[in-house]
Amino acid sequence: MTAPARPKVAMLLYPGLTLLDLIAPHAAFATTTEAHLVWKTADPVRSDFDVAVHPTTTFADCPTDLDVLFVPGGMGQAPVAADEEVLAFLADRGARAQYVTSVCGGSLILGAAGLLRGYRATTHWTGIDVLALFGAEYAEGRVVVDRNRITGGGVTAGLDFGLVVLAKLLGEDVAKMTQLMLEYAPAPPFDAGTPRTAGPELTAMARAGSEQVNEAMTAVAEELATKGWGRAA
Amino acid sequence: MTAPARPKVAMLLYPGLTLLDLIAPHAAFATTTEAHLVWKTADPVRSDFDVAVHPTTTFADCPTDLDVLFVPGGMGQAPVAADEEVLAFLADRGARAQYVTSVCGGSLILGAAGLLRGYRATTHWTGIDVLALFGAEYAEGRVVVDRNRITGGGVTAGLDFGLVVLAKLLGEDVAKMTQLMLEYAPAPPFDAGTPRTAGPELTAMARAGSEQVNEAMTAVAEELATKGWGRAA
Repeated sequence: MTAPARPKVAMLLYPGLTLLDLIAPHAAFATTTEAHLVWKTADPVRSDFDVAVHPTTTFADCPTDLDVLFVPGGMGQAPVAADEEVLAFLADRGARAQYVTSVCGGSLILGAAGLLRGYRATTHWTGIDVLALFGAEYAEGRVVVDRNRITGGGVTAGLDFGLVVLAKLLGEDVAKMTQLMLEYAPAPPFDAGTPRTAGPELTAMARAGSEQVNEAMTAVAEELATKGWGRAA
Repeated sequence: MTAPARPKVAMLLYPGLTLLDLIAPHAAFATTTEAHLVWKTADPVRSDFDVAVHPTTTFADCPTDLDVLFVPGGMGQAPVAADEEVLAFLADRGARAQYVTSVCGGSLILGAAGLLRGYRATTHWTGIDVLALFGAEYAEGRVVVDRNRITGGGVTAGLDFGLVVLAKLLGEDVAKMTQLMLEYAPAPPFDAGTPRTAGPELTAMARAGSEQVNEAMTAVAEELATKGWGRAA
């Protein structure tokens, strides 16, 4: 009897990523897949709250036969979406991966690499309007599956996303076992996780706090469109 | 007008910690508190799935006037619970912190430092029996508050825990705003997050997978008891 091969997952690191966007699905993948954290170099990468994490591989050494390509969001998402070295890596691996995936603003980076043109997708609720600039169609849902594109909503959606992807890769029993080990039986003390439940005042404040990132991402989309990347033809 | 002081939070790093135990509450704390990642030295620390993270401060440099002392769990929890340099640090800061807190098996490390004697607390469901060896009384609950001790259940309980602590530190509005930005409106694709919902077969497998860590932790508790640490007198 041979053990089944562990699916190969590549998770993009970049300066200014939101660490929970990465670590929530990583926790779902860590015990049963071969999960790589990938960046241009092996140097530590700083998250948007200044936590430094080491890549486990580089663009050059990252496996080419991926089961999953994954991109997280973060305050640093606009500069990385404008970086053609990153976009070329994502376009290359994305064209070959079994699943092309993201959580939060990571879908905008996939979009910048041309990987969501004509696909339904989601993103952090503050970034919904930006998705269309990359030729994607926003769809409601905590996790949105369209053919082999699987995108999760903001930050904590990465837990639900991780279990959805794991079930596709290895079956429901593996996903359920993982959920049990992660004790994922959520019990939020408040009901303020969406604009509808949080109400207009908190929603307006959160929107204001996201304006800068969205403006930067919009500028990236417009710039990329002039170069033939990103926006649908 | 002066901005209110940001509460000081120290979060323990150690080899073999479960990164999601740390990063879920860190995401809750990151925007509104002064959150430190602390270890003996400034060298990178490897998680239980081999992700290397950099401390932001050391035991020697960590603030002494903490609002929150926090300890995560992990596969490496037994060796760190047996490490008297770590226990001395936790006992020192824990005696002075406004809140002494943990997620998952982190409560067993707090217990080893003598910080849960006579307190109600929780831990990962697989480790419940070990809590009593450190003089703590197990209490059911996703997040258990007993006086200034706040302990969360396994891994993903760190999200609920983080919002509970944030509300105590800075009020419900700050916690709700944080929940909205983290888009924490969970929608697990399966209902298998507890032994009751996962059923006996998956539960037995998960228990078997946790035996080694629990045996190591039990041995630590017995060893510490002979030295006057840990177990209630």
